[in-house]
Amino acid sequence: MPKKSAGFILRPRFRVERGQDIGLGPGKVELLELIRETGSIAEAAKRMEMSYMRAWTLVKTMEDCFREPLIQVARGGASHGGAHLTEVGEQVVALYRRLEQEASSATADTWRELQKLLRS
Amino acid sequence: MPKKSAGFILRPRFRVERGQDIGLGPGKVELLELIRETGSIAEAAKRMEMSYMRAWTLVKTMEDCFREPLIQVARGGASHGGAHLTEVGEQVVALYRRLEQEASSATADTWRELQKLLRS
Repeated sequence: MPKKSAGFILRPRFRVERGQDIGLGPGKVELLELIRETGSIAEAAKRMEMSYMRAWTLVKTMEDCFREPLIQVARGGASHGGAHLTEVGEQVVALYRRLEQEASSATADTWRELQKLLRS
Repeated sequence: MPKKSAGFILRPRFRVERGQDIGLGPGKVELLELIRETGSIAEAAKRMEMSYMRAWTLVKTMEDCFREPLIQVARGGASHGGAHLTEVGEQVVALYRRLEQEASSATADTWRELQKLLRS
């Protein structure tokens, strides 16, 4: 996604905000992807080096911002049972990654201009 | 720049990175713009509610990443004298803001799709 040159990369980072609330951003999307990959909020949290409570808080914040659940927690409820993304959760991840790709494509020329001003 | 709807906005935030170094990002660009506006690093720091030392460190980091100076400090040197953007500094700010505009335009359709999934 990020474009390399002279060691510098341009990283687009989108935030979906409402006042102080951040419904979605790079960290939350990474968390969703890791939940998909590991099938577990606890394991995803571990990979991101955050506490389970912190991960759960991020999930709750997302759930408050979206109309439908992004994550389905298996029986065992909110504790350390399995978890997977819902169809909407998959859509949200895909749309967010598409935003990044579109931004990278659209900014290619301007980034090249900026690169000329950077040290190699 | 950010697009509003249902209270949520999509905010593109670009980072120019090299390893751990961040040559440019939202905070540094805001600092440059405030230096331009106020003619003073100290005053720009105050507006951003950061220490003068912190602002000076951000400026130094940028100077290390770009080929030419972004800021010209008036006599009085590194202390609390006046400061203004060089021509290259102006270019850097303009290019960064253009990245954001291009990203916002390019992602409009995808953002609309994502909005449909957000609570109003």
